[in-house]
Amino acid sequence: MQSHNVAMLGTGLIGDFYTRTLHGQRNRDRVSVVYSRSEERAKAFSDHWGIAKYTTSLEEAIGDDGVDTVVVGLPNFLHEEVITLAADAGKAILCTKPLARSGEEAKRILDKVESAGVFAGYLEDLCYTPKTLKAVESVRSGSIGDVTWVRSRETHPGPHSAWFWDKDKAGGGAIVDLGCHCIEIIRSFVGKENRPVEVMAWADTLVHPIRAEDNAVALIRFESGAIGQFEVSWTFRGGMDLRDEVAGTEGTIWLNHFLRTGLEIYTTGGGDGYVAEKLESTEGWLFPVGDEVGELGYVDMFTDMFDSMESGSEPRETFYDGYVVNAVMDAAYRSAESRQWEPVQVEWRGGSTPRIEKKAKLHDGHAIVKEEILPDGRVKLMLSHKDTGEIFDLVTSG
Amino acid sequence: MQSHNVAMLGTGLIGDFYTRTLHGQRNRDRVSVVYSRSEERAKAFSDHWGIAKYTTSLEEAIGDDGVDTVVVGLPNFLHEEVITLAADAGKAILCTKPLARSGEEAKRILDKVESAGVFAGYLEDLCYTPKTLKAVESVRSGSIGDVTWVRSRETHPGPHSAWFWDKDKAGGGAIVDLGCHCIEIIRSFVGKENRPVEVMAWADTLVHPIRAEDNAVALIRFESGAIGQFEVSWTFRGGMDLRDEVAGTEGTIWLNHFLRTGLEIYTTGGGDGYVAEKLESTEGWLFPVGDEVGELGYVDMFTDMFDSMESGSEPRETFYDGYVVNAVMDAAYRSAESRQWEPVQVEWRGGSTPRIEKKAKLHDGHAIVKEEILPDGRVKLMLSHKDTGEIFDLVTSG
Amino acid sequence: MQSHNVAMLGTGLIGDFYTRTLHGQRNRDRVSVVYSRSEERAKAFSDHWGIAKYTTSLEEAIGDDGVDTVVVGLPNFLHEEVITLAADAGKAILCTKPLARSGEEAKRILDKVESAGVFAGYLEDLCYTPKTLKAVESVRSGSIGDVTWVRSRETHPGPHSAWFWDKDKAGGGAIVDLGCHCIEIIRSFVGKENRPVEVMAWADTLVHPIRAEDNAVALIRFESGAIGQFEVSWTFRGGMDLRDEVAGTEGTIWLNHFLRTGLEIYTTGGGDGYVAEKLESTEGWLFPVGDEVGELGYVDMFTDMFDSMESGSEPRETFYDGYVVNAVMDAAYRSAESRQWEPVQVEWRGGSTPRIEKKAKLHDGHAIVKEEILPDGRVKLMLSHKDTGEIFDLVTSG
Amino acid sequence: MQSHNVAMLGTGLIGDFYTRTLHGQRNRDRVSVVYSRSEERAKAFSDHWGIAKYTTSLEEAIGDDGVDTVVVGLPNFLHEEVITLAADAGKAILCTKPLARSGEEAKRILDKVESAGVFAGYLEDLCYTPKTLKAVESVRSGSIGDVTWVRSRETHPGPHSAWFWDKDKAGGGAIVDLGCHCIEIIRSFVGKENRPVEVMAWADTLVHPIRAEDNAVALIRFESGAIGQFEVSWTFRGGMDLRDEVAGTEGTIWLNHFLRTGLEIYTTGGGDGYVAEKLESTEGWLFPVGDEVGELGYVDMFTDMFDSMESGSEPRETFYDGYVVNAVMDAAYRSAESRQWEPVQVEWRGGSTPRIEKKAKLHDGHAIVKEEILPDGRVKLMLSHKDTGEIFDLVTSG
Repeated sequence: MQSHNVAMLGTGLIGDFYTRTLHGQRNRDRVSVVYSRSEERAKAFSDHWGIAKYTTSLEEAIGDDGVDTVVVGLPNFLHEEVITLAADAGKAILCTKPLARSGEEAKRILDKVESAGVFAGYLEDLCYTPKTLKAVESVRSGSIGDVTWVRSRETHPGPHSAWFWDKDKAGGGAIVDLGCHCIEIIRSFVGKENRPVEVMAWADTLVHPIRAEDNAVALIRFESGAIGQFEVSWTFRGGMDLRDEVAGTEGTIWLNHFLRTGLEIYTTGGGDGYVAEKLESTEGWLFPVGDEVGELGYVDMFTDMFDSMESGSEPRETFYDGYVVNAVMDAAYRSAESRQWEPVQVEWRGGSTPRIEKKAKLHDGHAIVKEEILPDGRVKLMLSHKDTGEIFDLVTSG
Repeated sequence: MQSHNVAMLGTGLIGDFYTRTLHGQRNRDRVSVVYSRSEERAKAFSDHWGIAKYTTSLEEAIGDDGVDTVVVGLPNFLHEEVITLAADAGKAILCTKPLARSGEEAKRILDKVESAGVFAGYLEDLCYTPKTLKAVESVRSGSIGDVTWVRSRETHPGPHSAWFWDKDKAGGGAIVDLGCHCIEIIRSFVGKENRPVEVMAWADTLVHPIRAEDNAVALIRFESGAIGQFEVSWTFRGGMDLRDEVAGTEGTIWLNHFLRTGLEIYTTGGGDGYVAEKLESTEGWLFPVGDEVGELGYVDMFTDMFDSMESGSEPRETFYDGYVVNAVMDAAYRSAESRQWEPVQVEWRGGSTPRIEKKAKLHDGHAIVKEEILPDGRVKLMLSHKDTGEIFDLVTSG
Repeated sequence: MQSHNVAMLGTGLIGDFYTRTLHGQRNRDRVSVVYSRSEERAKAFSDHWGIAKYTTSLEEAIGDDGVDTVVVGLPNFLHEEVITLAADAGKAILCTKPLARSGEEAKRILDKVESAGVFAGYLEDLCYTPKTLKAVESVRSGSIGDVTWVRSRETHPGPHSAWFWDKDKAGGGAIVDLGCHCIEIIRSFVGKENRPVEVMAWADTLVHPIRAEDNAVALIRFESGAIGQFEVSWTFRGGMDLRDEVAGTEGTIWLNHFLRTGLEIYTTGGGDGYVAEKLESTEGWLFPVGDEVGELGYVDMFTDMFDSMESGSEPRETFYDGYVVNAVMDAAYRSAESRQWEPVQVEWRGGSTPRIEKKAKLHDGHAIVKEEILPDGRVKLMLSHKDTGEIFDLVTSG
Repeated sequence: MQSHNVAMLGTGLIGDFYTRTLHGQRNRDRVSVVYSRSEERAKAFSDHWGIAKYTTSLEEAIGDDGVDTVVVGLPNFLHEEVITLAADAGKAILCTKPLARSGEEAKRILDKVESAGVFAGYLEDLCYTPKTLKAVESVRSGSIGDVTWVRSRETHPGPHSAWFWDKDKAGGGAIVDLGCHCIEIIRSFVGKENRPVEVMAWADTLVHPIRAEDNAVALIRFESGAIGQFEVSWTFRGGMDLRDEVAGTEGTIWLNHFLRTGLEIYTTGGGDGYVAEKLESTEGWLFPVGDEVGELGYVDMFTDMFDSMESGSEPRETFYDGYVVNAVMDAAYRSAESRQWEPVQVEWRGGSTPRIEKKAKLHDGHAIVKEEILPDGRVKLMLSHKDTGEIFDLVTSG
């Protein structure tokens, strides 16, 4: 097994999370160079994390001889430029979410890494949370039958740097920042081979003095008939609400990644005031997460990336996935404007998925709509008449 | 204080719930006549609940001298006819949800009771759950600021009688059966004076062999800019999922009415197998509700109805509310067809509601987008430039 | 059916709760006289609740011609005197918890009402919560097999009147105030015919400047071998923690009556600050109960009391039960002193309960300790050798 | 940074968990030799986990040149022998819980490794769960004031190998198997410098055909006055119940490690039946944990062990801690026999802890027992009279 040397591009919150993961526990991989536009921030970051080199030159960071992997943790509007540099340098590239500001930009990025032949992984951490991995495995094993509906919700009081709030630099608002997570979580549950056909979205700027949307809800219709639903907000109060719900013909899954995970603290706010990070308050009932980089998927994500790199296989989340996500978000923005369903425009590689099958059993030739056991042990059938389609009750002796 | 004598029309599940409520605890009101189309069912119901009279004649039940209040617990397609009879008889009328199969039918019903001058209450129990009442009171007191979004979800494996599944008799499918609850819950939180302007809906028949929709999701845009979102399904597995979520500019509310209310039972399924009603399984982890008629709002609902009747005031839920609900559902059905937002067509009595206000504070004339306290105690401002609108970071000494 | 006229003795928190219940919803019974030692409080109370008469004379309240039922909501040290008066007046008596300050006092009270032949009910509301009623019914039906262990916990930051904190007036501290609830909840689950044999208790005054205990934990061993465990505290932070847990050979029950019942509110504390009663904070995450008098059992309790009175049967909670509770608390106090298990000294009327039965199945004559299915489908048995008693593993083909 | 080569002694469930952790994610350490008494199991284990060598010779495994660390995952009765061998071989030793079958045996083991001067770590995983680490850190920072009470509960339907059920081989029953976890969790919260003074325990064999206890509850009194409470059972139904609760003068902490962690699945049991490990059922509502080795503390535990080894510091959990745990369990067993509090007999190294301080504020010289704000804004004081100690109410204007 190898140990990888990483050039970390970016020293913001996400660069910090990535490095905390790579330098965490007994992990074998390390950040060996860090880049920031600001020398002060680059130096502080390298001091904090014990990184040997820091630089304000992208070329120097990417071109560093010891580095085999470039991790892109920069604002959205810089992704294409930086990935182009890294691809030309022949380095493996791991890029934070979203891949780009639009499907078109994402497609150019995808084409670039594919023509360069470098390893490229899409750092969609929330598809790697241990709960999600276990739940997806369970769905694949058939535990909930056919998936009919997935709700993915990510809301909090808003991001931590100016560029996120700038429609041009980010490519949008809450949809681009948070919806990208939700879309890929939804795809993980309905199946990545299940084509997202069209999108209907509402978006509005309700609270903040910005041009980008601070709230949005969208529906995504998949080829199988399944519906994905994402809810994003930069105006949520109470912490960070990260929840997913999956409905299937044979079961249900509920995931809560942050506010109700089995760690509950009430404090009057005494002591030095520290309870945990990412909380909106420092007193009252607080709901921190135990191990953020573990529970939010960062650990499993980097494991998959480096393991895939070493085995020559594709990671669970690829740049193609990032491109599909951008295409779905494009459709959401178009729909918010046009006020109608908009098709997802994407070069589809995923094959075809059949419609969710209705498997009505028959009784005397009539389709059984529902079957219930009555208190007295008899069975009540609700039947759709084979000739007229009229629905009628029939009580049988069971 | 008076005691009311009720003619209960209908002996199905809802008639049973209503009667369990009226005959429950130390309640002063009683069912004195029960009507069913089937003599067998009418007799069995009167025996079970200790009701003095039963009949298969609507006229006899409604016209009974001792009866001052008629409760309509019949299938949707019979509401108009029955309410007309009761209004002509000058009796107080309480009608189960939905009021009608369409806005047009609902309007005729509304006009009828208003011209007859009889008391008319809309039996929307889920707006009366003790949790909802407390939460709505809290919202009215300003605890969560301006409401921006309400999600109301009601899903279960499907209703218990044939007529529900019949598009013509019911007026639709899961939307008409369950969405009517959600819409009125949403209105309770955004404010009934807040006009529902337009609706965008998805509906599909994914699982059951029926013509009506068995799954639907809809967005309702209110005059204030707030969004209501309802999710209904007749294909949910795991019991009955009744949850509401409310987001406001200053807070959040989460309500769970059924599956996670603090009563959790694991059983290997031994004994006589009884744990509680309304559960999908009889072993494993089960989540019954303590007192169904209390927690689902029936008790507070009838209290409000009879108290209002006695004091000559309007109940919390009126036939006008029922009419608005039907108008919103009509828009949802139109939208599911037209695949675009559809206006809510309703004779509006509710007045006007201003747009949710953005109240950005200023710093040197620039609007503050977000303010954060850094670990070192300094304050980070994200500001929208007063001239250019560009968003930039500013760290101040706090 | 009758309507009862109640003399309410006491205008404190509990008198308020009782009256809120009796005057709540469409209840047929009413408080017709209220007594307080203070004329000011008596008048204010009667004004607030619309009660026709108020008085500072116990004799006047109890002897009032219209009154058929006396409700005792006075401090513990007054119970015996007042109950004696009411019994002599031939009125039905409902007494708040605990019945007395000691088993001896309770026994005298019990003897008094029995010799007077009046109806006497013990107002132990927490045995009547809808969740508890449903859970107890489920246990009776065999859903969790034999009960092996019950934990009942009641903790909050301390009571609201001086006399509670006074060891002599109350008869003790947190045990007498809160443990009485827990003991009777435990008895409801292990079965009232199941004799409490002995008690082991720890009690200490950790935080408050008082002589009575502000924290205690006790174990109660029942004749069947089942263990009851109560935890009480007047120093809990975060609201009111009311939880019960029941373990049985075939199942498990978890009850949460207050802090996690499906109503969750986050607020920044704006508006008029009102969210709900009984909360320790007015901002942050708050967890109120929907309908306090319903969910805490008051409604079902008074229903049982008046229904039993009318039908001539015993209520679910009798003065004998109150006496048993006092006897168990006496043993707890003795044990906290003697630092060893202490027998419960009680005149037992409950019959005898057999020991929880071990029902080991045999395999070739060896008792099966545990049976597990291995991943490959084979069955692993852990067996106790029939001759040596040595435990050994055996893997069979299933 | 180094990579460690481990000799894994034992191929049971715990050896499997340890190896899953060491070979998990991108971990730098590896098992290089595995030992089992059975060649078949040793070979199967080495195949499954890709371990280079396997052996049935303890000496060969421990003495292997490449091995620097010995992990003891063998039954309790073998610990002393094996640790002696490893200490003589000068290897670092990590031993599973409990350290020994009695305090005496534990003390000999402790003396052995100290005289040999080898690194010795106690593999108490549940003190390393991310939630526990965060909660303990929060307590240390003062968030909940002085700790007054800790409840630690571990219950499940019983262990997976015969030797656990054998009183002699294991050193006891559920207390030795599960109580050891609870005791150390409790110590982590009350502070390891806080001496466990005495223990009161109940233990019984209620369900299984064994000599060892299958249920027990114990109280541990610490020098500060704080109380620890552990509850263990081999007869719990519904999965694995792992919960901790901490009460402090300024706050409360609730931890749930297994059954309610934010992952909830309902399944009708279809598909290939797989949902997750460690569940008691395969259908209905299931509550698996996302990442077991992460959430149950194994990852952080090995990180601490190897990091400490490399930095020459003591790990969080030492053999001395293991010895204290055994001493507390000894007292519990003595108490279950003697039916009274029993002193903990231990060579104490932890220093002294002051009694939890009562800090009553004064009002006119009287100690304030409680202070409440009345609805009308006035303040109600419950005061302990400075001369008489009598407690009285005083309402002030606030």
